[in-house]
Amino acid sequence: MERVAVLGVGMVPVDEHWDRSMVDLAGEAALAAMTDAGMERVDALIVGNMTAAVGESGQLNLAAQIADWCGWRGLEAYKVEAACASGAAAFRAGIVTVASGQVDSVLVVGVEKMSQTESTLTTAALATAADADYEVPHGPSFVALNALIMRRYQHEYGWQHEDFAPFSVNAHANAARNPFARLRHTISVKEYSRARIVSDPINILDASPTGDGAAAIVLTRSGKVNGHANRPTVVVAASAVATDTIGIHSRREPLRLFAAERSAHTAYLQAGLRPDEMDFFELHDAFSIMAALSLEAAGMAEVGQGPRLAQEGAIRPDGSIPIATFGGLKARGHPVGATGVYQLVEVTRQLWGEAGDNQLSKARVGMAQSIGGTGATVVTHILRIKAKPASPSLRHSHA
Amino acid sequence: MERVAVLGVGMVPVDEHWDRSMVDLAGEAALAAMTDAGMERVDALIVGNMTAAVGESGQLNLAAQIADWCGWRGLEAYKVEAACASGAAAFRAGIVTVASGQVDSVLVVGVEKMSQTESTLTTAALATAADADYEVPHGPSFVALNALIMRRYQHEYGWQHEDFAPFSVNAHANAARNPFARLRHTISVKEYSRARIVSDPINILDASPTGDGAAAIVLTRSGKVNGHANRPTVVVAASAVATDTIGIHSRREPLRLFAAERSAHTAYLQAGLRPDEMDFFELHDAFSIMAALSLEAAGMAEVGQGPRLAQEGAIRPDGSIPIATFGGLKARGHPVGATGVYQLVEVTRQLWGEAGDNQLSKARVGMAQSIGGTGATVVTHILRIKAKPASPSLRHSHA
Repeated sequence: MERVAVLGVGMVPVDEHWDRSMVDLAGEAALAAMTDAGMERVDALIVGNMTAAVGESGQLNLAAQIADWCGWRGLEAYKVEAACASGAAAFRAGIVTVASGQVDSVLVVGVEKMSQTESTLTTAALATAADADYEVPHGPSFVALNALIMRRYQHEYGWQHEDFAPFSVNAHANAARNPFARLRHTISVKEYSRARIVSDPINILDASPTGDGAAAIVLTRSGKVNGHANRPTVVVAASAVATDTIGIHSRREPLRLFAAERSAHTAYLQAGLRPDEMDFFELHDAFSIMAALSLEAAGMAEVGQGPRLAQEGAIRPDGSIPIATFGGLKARGHPVGATGVYQLVEVTRQLWGEAGDNQLSKARVGMAQSIGGTGATVVTHILRIKAKPASPSLRHSHA
Repeated sequence: MERVAVLGVGMVPVDEHWDRSMVDLAGEAALAAMTDAGMERVDALIVGNMTAAVGESGQLNLAAQIADWCGWRGLEAYKVEAACASGAAAFRAGIVTVASGQVDSVLVVGVEKMSQTESTLTTAALATAADADYEVPHGPSFVALNALIMRRYQHEYGWQHEDFAPFSVNAHANAARNPFARLRHTISVKEYSRARIVSDPINILDASPTGDGAAAIVLTRSGKVNGHANRPTVVVAASAVATDTIGIHSRREPLRLFAAERSAHTAYLQAGLRPDEMDFFELHDAFSIMAALSLEAAGMAEVGQGPRLAQEGAIRPDGSIPIATFGGLKARGHPVGATGVYQLVEVTRQLWGEAGDNQLSKARVGMAQSIGGTGATVVTHILRIKAKPASPSLRHSHA
């Protein structure tokens, strides 16, 4: 996998972009990434998107439309969908396309336009990530399905609701320093505890805000990287997708994210690295319970002990395993099909040392994980700085 | 590309399958392909589907659901979408996934469930392939957009409506011998000419029927093929995607399928073959006008002369370039996101010599082309029988 490198990134702020279409947002992020890469054209465009066909956009065939908007007549283009993991799955498809050797470069764009004049359309669109035959007909929204998991988790492991506060507090603190974030204000534990309930026990500060957004990454064969002189080369050390039952009711252990465990485990094997060798982890904190379960699935916390890591401060920028370093889904915002690409843009910026006010002091290896549905499709990537050719005595120091 | 081979195929008949869900159909085709390949598990599943999220199914995250139905817990799985070319684009993604070397085998499944209790939902779902901002708001259905093209084509090149009859007559004649086809009855030129108008000049016998269907193909690295002793090895000689503007109004020459020209041209270059070296061509005859334009775009007819090839009988099974050899979209049926995979299953069966009553006398190289929208996304594949290791004097005969 280290044959594939990141050459450029771009994004638009996550927000309500009433003045721009979905294709405008995608095109803007795409051209920003191309400018960053110093390129005018790529060989292929792969788009990650979840809800464009439902709701008010009503648009499939979106990848062709984005290629046209960018002025790339004739370009190879198609869309990848894996619910909220669509952006990360598109990145996966981009990686194998470059690794196949058939093309030299691929642009991956994640885009979502979720602001609707009828907000019920957004709720309905998100429900398509759940089982349409056995979950949705019973009436739960996507938040309600996560609330079922959180309540059961609290019951099994004895955590109180306020024990989850550090996840949201950390996310907001980081987003406050990120100009691309949707919610750029800090919150206190007290505010968290008093926030309005959405679906008990999930309150508004447990839940990530949706939004309109687009993020883009240019991938190329690592031998071809020649971009910015001061940038270390960032390569793909691992790329792994795994799935689980789409319905929670079919899972043997509904409090364990089996697909997250499996895709993380596969990624570690590919990269030849252990969980404790990750410098940071952009996880899928769509809800605070998902942040806890993701840390456990990735082997960074014991089963049932995710919140302890948060309480001990390990997840903060100065902790042992920083998460949501630009605000995460919780506060950067969660434009669903775009989110996976935002995460990978953020990982790349950390590794390049170009994370601005969000820069971590140690960022040589970073992991991103995206979850489609309540754990049905999980995509894990590990990016790392490519070791430079070293003097003989040092050659194996970053092997 | 010849590193990738087809190891097994499976499908369900195209029909109205009111008794089975979309996932049932996909699973049935998937397991049929696995049985054909003599395998119990693959490394990844890539699903082609267009309309599952819209209409009555309301299901995204479909690939995870299909993996679960098949009993493949944990499997890598995601969906690819490119409107009516979704199945072919999924096949493209499957090819690069195998060619990347990261996995040994991929199962590609195209599936669509279009029978709805409200038929207007199907019309609305198909319209998502057109430009949601600049075409759909004016009210044309997807048939109407094709009717605009057909009318202009007749005007520019002087063809009468009945000149297109051989396309539909040939498709129905071939479908009559195909147990997987939706419309298994022959039609006459007179029946064609008298058929009910859908959107002038397109009548019901110019238009392909939608339907419920699923088709599946197992891909593997060609060195690993060990299947049926009597089967020649079928490899991917070319795989190419190209795009054009999504709206017809933006095209410089609306009667030429630029993306089809480009993807076919790229495919010929990859395969090192000329158009006249194709033994047959499974083209995207969603409407008879599209069959004519596809023949022209693929370099098999002069611009404006597609119908002549049909009138001369070249498109029939005994002609110089047989098309729709199992009935094509017109009569096998067009379950949109599944169609591209049906075409590739059919090409494979011809090359294996397992096409039954539809077997062509000469089938060593076959091409399939799938069109998303009115020409926005076009996917072209060339499959061929892999030359066996020959005696030294013959070694270059099938290079």
